[in-house]
Amino acid sequence: MTGKNVLIVFAHQDPNKSFNAALKDVAVKTLEDNGCKVQVSDLYSQNWDPRATKNDFTGPRQNEESFSYIVEQSNAAKQGKLTEVILAEQKKLKEADLVIFQFPVYWFSLPAILKGWFDKVLAGGITHSYPANVFENGLMKGKKAVLSFTTGGSQDMYTSKGTHGDIGMILYPIQWGTLRFVGFDVLKPNIAFSAAYRSKEDRKKILDDWKLRLQKIFQENAIQLREK
Amino acid sequence: MTGKNVLIVFAHQDPNKSFNAALKDVAVKTLEDNGCKVQVSDLYSQNWDPRATKNDFTGPRQNEESFSYIVEQSNAAKQGKLTEVILAEQKKLKEADLVIFQFPVYWFSLPAILKGWFDKVLAGGITHSYPANVFENGLMKGKKAVLSFTTGGSQDMYTSKGTHGDIGMILYPIQWGTLRFVGFDVLKPNIAFSAAYRSKEDRKKILDDWKLRLQKIFQENAIQLREK
Repeated sequence: MTGKNVLIVFAHQDPNKSFNAALKDVAVKTLEDNGCKVQVSDLYSQNWDPRATKNDFTGPRQNEESFSYIVEQSNAAKQGKLTEVILAEQKKLKEADLVIFQFPVYWFSLPAILKGWFDKVLAGGITHSYPANVFENGLMKGKKAVLSFTTGGSQDMYTSKGTHGDIGMILYPIQWGTLRFVGFDVLKPNIAFSAAYRSKEDRKKILDDWKLRLQKIFQENAIQLREK
Repeated sequence: MTGKNVLIVFAHQDPNKSFNAALKDVAVKTLEDNGCKVQVSDLYSQNWDPRATKNDFTGPRQNEESFSYIVEQSNAAKQGKLTEVILAEQKKLKEADLVIFQFPVYWFSLPAILKGWFDKVLAGGITHSYPANVFENGLMKGKKAVLSFTTGGSQDMYTSKGTHGDIGMILYPIQWGTLRFVGFDVLKPNIAFSAAYRSKEDRKKILDDWKLRLQKIFQENAIQLREK
């Protein structure tokens, strides 16, 4: 693992005392102890603006008549006319061999602040280019990505017979439609079910298991996201 | 339909000349012409902040040690200690018999600004209360909700054999895990596939079809979101 670059995109309001922070801290320490260079994008601390607006581009508009974010984003990306804060995230992403997304699930999905990281950082021409460079040919090819998150509901709720449904189905828009779309090898998610209601011992075990897993994470292969 | 209240939550940067704006405008006019009272939450124009932060609550924290948004949100909601902008959205929601969400799909999901509307407005104690008031007993029971959106990809990509997968699977976290979770009767989505690449005639037909459908939308029943 020595020499590998890791980016942790962290989306919790409490960078110190939350369980998400503990999971992030274990990852930073374990990976650094194993010779990786780790960068953290702490979205709330950075006051990351998740809104996709005209202010994200510094050059002239491609279409002054009506506004399509996707069109303007891809145009601006080609010309290097994205704002500094977006370029900085893209730089970290380009350098990374592994990206870990650490967050609490809100409404079966990403917190808005993290969704806005995807909306603004994953730009046409940078992470993918339709139709030639998507999925197995996405520009993030060769990089690994893993979702690490906490849930409110318990594990049995997130099964095909449970009230919430299979967790893989809930993650499908993120793991297939986003991460795999841009070419990542998506690894098995790291899930802390009903984190807020677990005992101190359970929480310690979750952190220890994450630590153990991270020590060999570069040996892991992508999981299957869809039936063939 | 006379006397019915409708809320349109609109998430496009261009409130006038985009196709999403046209879909929103058709809905406002058709529903008003049929005797409904229509309110629009135009999120970009309102400069809606999608970030879930401590600034969303006006009272003392329940837990000063560490921060859980969901815990603090539900506590603040009980005490009426949410900010005015959030209370205003909740008021519109409570009054609504039908809620239409109008947006372009970004990354198989909601634009971050709209995701943040869900994160902040759908508060425990207001729209649901776990475990007694969720799904068929959610506090939004009796209200209808419909997703109306544009996509980049074409219709054949969004099928079980297509590159993107079945559209129902992509919408599952929103339709089941969010709208149905709080008790809405979820109606068939209104989808304008590959809106940017359609002819003027196609676009006109999409608008006309939406208009026709809206004239009888209160007669529609909920769709099935999961296999039994």
